[in-house]
Amino acid sequence: MNPEEFLDAYLKDRRKIVEEALQRYLPDEDTLPQDLHTAVHYSVFAGGKRIRPILCLAAHEACGGDLAAAMPTACALEFIHTYSLIHDDLPAMDNDDLRRGKPTCHKAFGEATAILAGDALLTEAFVLLSRSEKIPTPAERRLAVIQEIAAAAGLAGMVGGQALDIGAEKVKPDFRGLQEIHRRKTGALLTASVKAGAILAGAGEQKISALAKFGHHVGMAFQIADDVLNIEGDAELMGKSTGSDAAMGKVTYPSLLGLDAAKTNLAQHVEQAIDSIDAFDARALPLRVIARYIMDRKM
Amino acid sequence: MNPEEFLDAYLKDRRKIVEEALQRYLPDEDTLPQDLHTAVHYSVFAGGKRIRPILCLAAHEACGGDLAAAMPTACALEFIHTYSLIHDDLPAMDNDDLRRGKPTCHKAFGEATAILAGDALLTEAFVLLSRSEKIPTPAERRLAVIQEIAAAAGLAGMVGGQALDIGAEKVKPDFRGLQEIHRRKTGALLTASVKAGAILAGAGEQKISALAKFGHHVGMAFQIADDVLNIEGDAELMGKSTGSDAAMGKVTYPSLLGLDAAKTNLAQHVEQAIDSIDAFDARALPLRVIARYIMDRKM
Repeated sequence: MNPEEFLDAYLKDRRKIVEEALQRYLPDEDTLPQDLHTAVHYSVFAGGKRIRPILCLAAHEACGGDLAAAMPTACALEFIHTYSLIHDDLPAMDNDDLRRGKPTCHKAFGEATAILAGDALLTEAFVLLSRSEKIPTPAERRLAVIQEIAAAAGLAGMVGGQALDIGAEKVKPDFRGLQEIHRRKTGALLTASVKAGAILAGAGEQKISALAKFGHHVGMAFQIADDVLNIEGDAELMGKSTGSDAAMGKVTYPSLLGLDAAKTNLAQHVEQAIDSIDAFDARALPLRVIARYIMDRKM
Repeated sequence: MNPEEFLDAYLKDRRKIVEEALQRYLPDEDTLPQDLHTAVHYSVFAGGKRIRPILCLAAHEACGGDLAAAMPTACALEFIHTYSLIHDDLPAMDNDDLRRGKPTCHKAFGEATAILAGDALLTEAFVLLSRSEKIPTPAERRLAVIQEIAAAAGLAGMVGGQALDIGAEKVKPDFRGLQEIHRRKTGALLTASVKAGAILAGAGEQKISALAKFGHHVGMAFQIADDVLNIEGDAELMGKSTGSDAAMGKVTYPSLLGLDAAKTNLAQHVEQAIDSIDAFDARALPLRVIARYIMDRKM
């Protein structure tokens, strides 16, 4: 099996088990109030790539953890990611009608239900992170994971980053400003995903900080790849139109650095991500392969 | 000191220490992005009664706990309450321009910032609930508190209740339906407030379940009192107009039971709340007095 085949099979398998778990952890679609539960399911199962849960599980295994013990945390990360997409798409925010080729949550269910579906997913993430589990993980570790994820999602992380991003429409950021937006908006939760996996497995300080570095570079690479795909990507594969950043005059890595330099920067971040975890053994192979996938992904 | 003077002094003192703690636990108003932080402060310090934190602290003390150990939890409850008000006021939801006599968050800061301010407060609540503390509380208890509060705020509680409430504008609920809305929309978080205080103090099952019953009745009384105030209250004291429920044809306890029967029902819930905790010693005096305050409050 060459690396590409391994990656395909690995991601496909992981998505499947993550989606089965997401299904288990959400209240049924026909729970009352039904509109809200249907909207929550609609958005959670709208074709996400499940990068955050997969990173969390991979980091957990790279530190010798057992898959099942990290599954609630992995799914909580996907709940939080999905909530952020629902709220970002709202008319008052990015006002997007389509996401992955399907109507956005507020287009399908109305704005009030979409706001509540986002609120619900953010809250249910913490229900999941704190619920009692058959596989006992020390409560201290679980608290540390909640701390890590909440901080990454809060004012210092994702929510603050989204507000900066909205502000960037008025006052164009420079390179440092752009990095700050992305560190908070996407990087923080990606980094928290790998750190949470490591913390749950009981990893030591050194491993956790190596993985935090890995997460940082993967996060940067992820965002630059997004910007590059917005120029060069296949609209049909991605389920959204390309060229929108340029049309809206958005500041991106390619617009600041030029397309070629942005691609070089992307490749550097991927190398740095892989270098960060060179002290890990073969169980970190999936993490290494995922880092490459971030660069080569087509959607 | 008669009971009324005691209550006034007690609530005033508790509001003061809660507000000092809220100030400490929030990032400064001039943290970047500034608009978002200003909006968060604006809404948190918009004149709230701090009922949830005060109930949490009182339940904690009634179970022999030390005030300082419950303060982060008390403030997290106020963050969650404030987030719910910000989102409920949004144009897509209740579309309210005023709250406690001041412009609502989206009126003052725009809709995008208001959505993010709500998201931020909900998330920061969990940052606060999970952060390391000088006063060590066993991690198991802290996890149980997070579970209690998250569940009360989530689909089975507050978010679900708000969705039911929005639905009630189209299909009018009966008495049982109205109770279900309020149990989830307001009752769940009020109950979680007292339970959280008890759990943090290390209370046993019996005390926790007595306090859960207390919280349930206080929650019902609180909502009926709200409905009664909407008819008979002093608009100036409350900072909002009265009679709005009737004008909008909203189903309320008075509209279903008649005003007098609603008041009788309110008094019964207050009695039942107080009865629930009759096994507690004098340290539960504030809880008993607060239950009476719920009925007699003017705003």
